[in-house]
Amino acid sequence: MDLGTVIGIVLVMALLAGAMSMGVGVGAYIDIPSVLIVIGGSIGALMISFKPSQMKSFTKIFMIAVKPPEEDKAELIKKLIGFATKARKDGILALESEVNGEPNEFLKKGLSMAIDGNEPDTIRDLLEIDMEQTSTRHKINGSMFSQWAGLAGAMGMVGTLIGLVAMLLNMADPSAIGPSMAVALLTTMYGAIIGNVVGTPIAIILGIRNDDETLVREMIISGIMSIQSGDAPRALEAKLLSFLAPIERVSQFD
Amino acid sequence: MDLGTVIGIVLVMALLAGAMSMGVGVGAYIDIPSVLIVIGGSIGALMISFKPSQMKSFTKIFMIAVKPPEEDKAELIKKLIGFATKARKDGILALESEVNGEPNEFLKKGLSMAIDGNEPDTIRDLLEIDMEQTSTRHKINGSMFSQWAGLAGAMGMVGTLIGLVAMLLNMADPSAIGPSMAVALLTTMYGAIIGNVVGTPIAIILGIRNDDETLVREMIISGIMSIQSGDAPRALEAKLLSFLAPIERVSQFD
Amino acid sequence: MDLGTVIGIVLVMALLAGAMSMGVGVGAYIDIPSVLIVIGGSIGALMISFKPSQMKSFTKIFMIAVKPPEEDKAELIKKLIGFATKARKDGILALESEVNGEPNEFLKKGLSMAIDGNEPDTIRDLLEIDMEQTSTRHKINGSMFSQWAGLAGAMGMVGTLIGLVAMLLNMADPSAIGPSMAVALLTTMYGAIIGNVVGTPIAIILGIRNDDETLVREMIISGIMSIQSGDAPRALEAKLLSFLAPIERVSQFD
Amino acid sequence: MDLGTVIGIVLVMALLAGAMSMGVGVGAYIDIPSVLIVIGGSIGALMISFKPSQMKSFTKIFMIAVKPPEEDKAELIKKLIGFATKARKDGILALESEVNGEPNEFLKKGLSMAIDGNEPDTIRDLLEIDMEQTSTRHKINGSMFSQWAGLAGAMGMVGTLIGLVAMLLNMADPSAIGPSMAVALLTTMYGAIIGNVVGTPIAIILGIRNDDETLVREMIISGIMSIQSGDAPRALEAKLLSFLAPIERVSQFD
Amino acid sequence: MDLGTVIGIVLVMALLAGAMSMGVGVGAYIDIPSVLIVIGGSIGALMISFKPSQMKSFTKIFMIAVKPPEEDKAELIKKLIGFATKARKDGILALESEVNGEPNEFLKKGLSMAIDGNEPDTIRDLLEIDMEQTSTRHKINGSMFSQWAGLAGAMGMVGTLIGLVAMLLNMADPSAIGPSMAVALLTTMYGAIIGNVVGTPIAIILGIRNDDETLVREMIISGIMSIQSGDAPRALEAKLLSFLAPIERVSQFD
Repeated sequence: MDLGTVIGIVLVMALLAGAMSMGVGVGAYIDIPSVLIVIGGSIGALMISFKPSQMKSFTKIFMIAVKPPEEDKAELIKKLIGFATKARKDGILALESEVNGEPNEFLKKGLSMAIDGNEPDTIRDLLEIDMEQTSTRHKINGSMFSQWAGLAGAMGMVGTLIGLVAMLLNMADPSAIGPSMAVALLTTMYGAIIGNVVGTPIAIILGIRNDDETLVREMIISGIMSIQSGDAPRALEAKLLSFLAPIERVSQFD
Repeated sequence: MDLGTVIGIVLVMALLAGAMSMGVGVGAYIDIPSVLIVIGGSIGALMISFKPSQMKSFTKIFMIAVKPPEEDKAELIKKLIGFATKARKDGILALESEVNGEPNEFLKKGLSMAIDGNEPDTIRDLLEIDMEQTSTRHKINGSMFSQWAGLAGAMGMVGTLIGLVAMLLNMADPSAIGPSMAVALLTTMYGAIIGNVVGTPIAIILGIRNDDETLVREMIISGIMSIQSGDAPRALEAKLLSFLAPIERVSQFD
Repeated sequence: MDLGTVIGIVLVMALLAGAMSMGVGVGAYIDIPSVLIVIGGSIGALMISFKPSQMKSFTKIFMIAVKPPEEDKAELIKKLIGFATKARKDGILALESEVNGEPNEFLKKGLSMAIDGNEPDTIRDLLEIDMEQTSTRHKINGSMFSQWAGLAGAMGMVGTLIGLVAMLLNMADPSAIGPSMAVALLTTMYGAIIGNVVGTPIAIILGIRNDDETLVREMIISGIMSIQSGDAPRALEAKLLSFLAPIERVSQFD
Repeated sequence: MDLGTVIGIVLVMALLAGAMSMGVGVGAYIDIPSVLIVIGGSIGALMISFKPSQMKSFTKIFMIAVKPPEEDKAELIKKLIGFATKARKDGILALESEVNGEPNEFLKKGLSMAIDGNEPDTIRDLLEIDMEQTSTRHKINGSMFSQWAGLAGAMGMVGTLIGLVAMLLNMADPSAIGPSMAVALLTTMYGAIIGNVVGTPIAIILGIRNDDETLVREMIISGIMSIQSGDAPRALEAKLLSFLAPIERVSQFD
Repeated sequence: MDLGTVIGIVLVMALLAGAMSMGVGVGAYIDIPSVLIVIGGSIGALMISFKPSQMKSFTKIFMIAVKPPEEDKAELIKKLIGFATKARKDGILALESEVNGEPNEFLKKGLSMAIDGNEPDTIRDLLEIDMEQTSTRHKINGSMFSQWAGLAGAMGMVGTLIGLVAMLLNMADPSAIGPSMAVALLTTMYGAIIGNVVGTPIAIILGIRNDDETLVREMIISGIMSIQSGDAPRALEAKLLSFLAPIERVSQFD
C-alpha cells in the first residue's frame, strides 16, 4: 500500500475521532444498525446493478486502488530501446528469446506478432482493440465505486428519514427527542464519510491508474511499430520520452 | 433473474425493514396515499415525456435489466472461427446452411449479405448503422429509468411540501404536529428509495448491458469482415480474443 | 395531443389534487401571488436570455412537444423505394412530377438537386449542413425549457426566502407563524412542480423528437444518394430498414 | 438593449418587489452589508481566477450580452452572392474595392487573402484557426459569468452561516432571534437572485451569441471558398440558405 | 503574484471579516479543531487518491496558479518570424546558434529536430504527443484542486454532523444549545469558503492556464512546420496572428 494512502486514511480517521471525542466521546458515534443500513444497504443496491462476477472483483479492485501494480516507465523505455537496437543489428527474429521471458503480457503479445511477420496494421489494430476494451472494462469497474459513493449518501439519507419518522411518532417523552435525532443523523454522517472518503477517492484513483496504464500501452504500441519498421533507437527514445513529464526525461544516449 | 440482483434486493429490503421495525414498526412507514403520489406521480410525469409505445416496453425493459439475454462470447468466437474455417476450405457459399439456423439475427443478416456477394463496405455500413441505431434506442430506453429516478425524488419532495403545508395550517393541536410531519416525510423517503435503489441502478445496468451488446456486435462485424476476406482462422481468433478480458481469453488452437 | 401525454398530465394533477384535498383542501394550496412569482418570474428571467423571436415560438414549441408532427418511417421507406425503382427504369429525370407534390421539404430539396444534376458531394454537403443546423436550432429551443425548469426552481426558492423573512420579522403573533410559513413554502412547491412536471419533461421530449427527426433526415440523405447512384431498390431497402428497430422492419419484397 | 431583455428584467424586479411589499415592505429586504458580501465577495473570488485583463472586459461582455452586435444573415448572403457574381464576371481581382470598405473584419481578411492569390487550403486553415480561437476566448468569457453565478450562491450561503452563528451565540433576547435570522437569510436570497437571474442567463446568452457568430463565420468561410473556386452564385446561395431556418430562407433568384 | 489575485483575496477576506465583526466579532468564527477537521481532513482524503509525488507538487501547482509563468505571445511570434526569415535566407542550419540559447524547451526541441533533418511528420508527431501528454498531466493536477473543493465541502458537512450529534445528546443545559450549534456550523462555513474561494477558483485558473499553454504550443508547432517548409515570413505571421484576439494582432510588417 502507498505510504501516502496510509497517511491519508490515518489522518482522516484521527481527525474525525478527535472531533468526536471532544464532545460526547467516539462511542456515541458508533451505532451498528446505522452502519449496517449504510454499508449493507449501499452494497446491496450495488449488487442490483453489477453482475456477481463484477462484485467478486470488488475487493480485488479495491486493492488495485490502494496498491497499484505500477509500471516503471523509464525501465520500459530502456527495454524497448534494447529491443530496437538488437532488432536493427540481428533482425527482428533475434528478439524471440527476449519475448519468452517478458512479464508484460501486452508487450509480449505485440512483439510475438511482429516476430511472426504480421502486417503492422494488423498488429496495431489488435493491440488498440485490446487497449481500448481494457480501458472500457476498467472504467466500468471504476464506476462501481463512484456509484457506491452515491448509494452510500442515499442510504444515509434514507436511514435518517427512517429515524426522523420514528422520532416524530414518539414525541411523548421530550427528553428522548435529542438522542433519537442524534442517532437518526448518524446514517447521514456515515454516508457522507463512505461516499467522500472511500468511494469517490477510489473511483478517482482508478481513473488515474487507468489513464496511466493506457499511456504505457500507447508507448508500447509506438515502440513495437518503431521496432518493426526499423527506426533508429535514438529516434525511438526521443518519441517515447515525449510521453513523460520533462523532469522524468533521462536519455541513455547523452 | 440474476442471483446477485435477487440477493441485492432482498438485502436492501431486509435492512430497511429491520431499521423500521426497531423504532415504531414497519407499518408506520407504509402510507398508501404517499406511495401513490410518488410512484403514480413519477410514472404519470414520465408518460408526458415518453410515447405510449415506449411506456409499454417499460416492463419489458425492466425485465431485460433484471434478466439479461446475455451472449456467451467464448461460444460466439468458436462459432465465428468455425465459419471462417469452413469458408476458407469450401468457399463462403458453403455457409448457407449454417446461416439458416443461426439464432443471432445480427450475425445472420451480416453473413447472408456476405454469401449474397455484397461488397464488404456495403455490409459494414449497413451493420454499423444497425448497431448504432440499436444502441441509440437502448440509450433512450435507459434514460427512461434515470428520468424516473429524478422524477421520483421530485414527487417525493412535492409530497412532503404538500404535507408540511397542511401541517402548518393545522397547528391548533400540538400533539398532531409530530405524526403529520412524519407522514409528510414519507414521500421524500419513498422518492429516495425508488430513485436510488430502483431507477438509477436499472439505468446503469441497461447502460452496461448496451455496451456489452455493442461489443458483441463489433466482434460480429469484425468476424464477418475477416470471413469474407478469407483471413486465417488463427488470426481471426487472435483479433476476437483481444476484445475480451485477459482471463477470458482461451484459444482453441493451443 | 398524444393520448399518453394527456393521461400523464391528468394522472399527475389528480394525484396532487387528491393529496392536497386529504389535508386542508386544494384551495389552501392556491395562492395567486405565489403563482405569479414562480411562473412570471421564471418566464421573465427566461426573456433575459432568449431573443423575443425565440420567446414567441415558446407556445409553438410547447405544442410540438405535446403533439409532434411525426413522420411515418415505413411510409418514407416505401416512398424512397418507389422513387429508386422509377429512377432505375426511366432515369432520374422521371422523378420530376413526384418531387413537385412531395410534402417533406427536406426530401424535396434533395431530390430536386439530384434531378438538376448536381454532384453527389454537393448534395450531401448541403443536406448535411441543413440537418445539422436544424438540429442545433432545435437544441437551443429545447434548452429554453430545461432552462425554464431551473429558473422555476430558483424563483420558487427566492419566493420562499421572501416569505420566510417576512414571517421572521413578524413573529409577534405566534398563531400566524404556521400559516405564514405554509404560504412561503408554496412557491418552492410550485417551482418543483413546474420544473419537474412541465419544464424538464418537455426538454426531454424535444430532445427525443429532434433525434427522431435527424434520424429521418439521415435516412433521406442515404436514400437520395442511393437513388442518384442507381443502387438496386432491394439494397436500398435493406440499408434503410437497418435504421429501424427489428420489430419495425417489414420488407415489401418478401 | 433588446426589448425582451428589458421587459424580462423589469418583470422579474416588479414581481420580486411586489412580493416583498406584500409582507413587510421592500425596505426590509435591503441590507447593504449583505449586498456587499454577496456581490463584492463573489466578484472578489472571481478576480482570483480571472486575469485583470479579463476582469476589465467584464462590463464590456455584460453589454455584449444585453445588446448584441448581431449580423443580419440575409444581408450577408446577399453580399456574398454579389461578390460571387462580380468575381465570376470580372475575375476575383475586381473585388478589391469592395473589400476595402467591408466592415466585417473576418470577411475582409479572408477575401483579401483570396485576392492576393493564396491557396484555398491556406485561407481555410487560417480562417478556421481564427474562428476556433475566437470561439474559445468567448467561451472563457462566458464561463466568467457562470462561475460568477456559482460564487454568488456560495457567498450567499457563507453570509447566511455567518449570520446564523452570530444569532446562535446571542440568544439571550428571544425577540431578536426572528430579525437576526431574517437578515441572515438575505444573503442566500441575494445569491439566488444574482446567480439565477443575472449570472446564469448572461452565461447562456453569451453561449447562444457565440454559436451564432460561429455560424456566421462558417457561412463566410463557405462563401469565400465558393467565390475563389468560381461556383455559380445560385449554387452558393442554395448552400448558404441551408444554414438558416426554413422560414428565413428567401432566395433572390426566385 | 497577479495584482488581481491579491486584490481578490484581500477583498473577500476583508468582506468576510467585516461581516463577522458586525455581530459577535471575528474571534467567534475561529475554532482551531474545526479548521483542522476541514483542512486536515480534506487534504488527508486527497492523499488517499493522489500519489505522494503529486501531493508534493501541491504547493508548486498552487504557486503556478497564483503566479503563472506566462509566455508573451507577441514576443513569441516575433521570434518565430525572425527564425523563419533567417532560415529562408541562410538555410535552416543557420538557426543552430539561436536554438542553443532558446529558453522555451518545447520550441528548442522542435527546432533542433528540424535542424537535424527529421521528417516534418516525425517532428509534428513527437511535439503533439508532448503537447497532449503535458496537457493531460496538467488536467490531473487541476483535478486535484477541484477534488479538494468537493472534499472540503464534504468534511465541513461531516464536521457539522459530528457537532450536531454532540449537541443533541447534551441538551440538559438549554443555554448551551445555541453556542454548540454555532460551533457545529463553523465547519460547514469553512468548507464552503475553502471549496468556493480557494479550491474551485484554482482549478479553473489552472484549466485556463493549461489552455493558454496549449495554445502557445500549437503556435510553436505551426511555426516550426512553416520554418521547415520555407514559408514566407509574412504568411507565417498572418497564420500566427490568427491565434490571437483581434486587439492583440499587431503586425511587424505594416
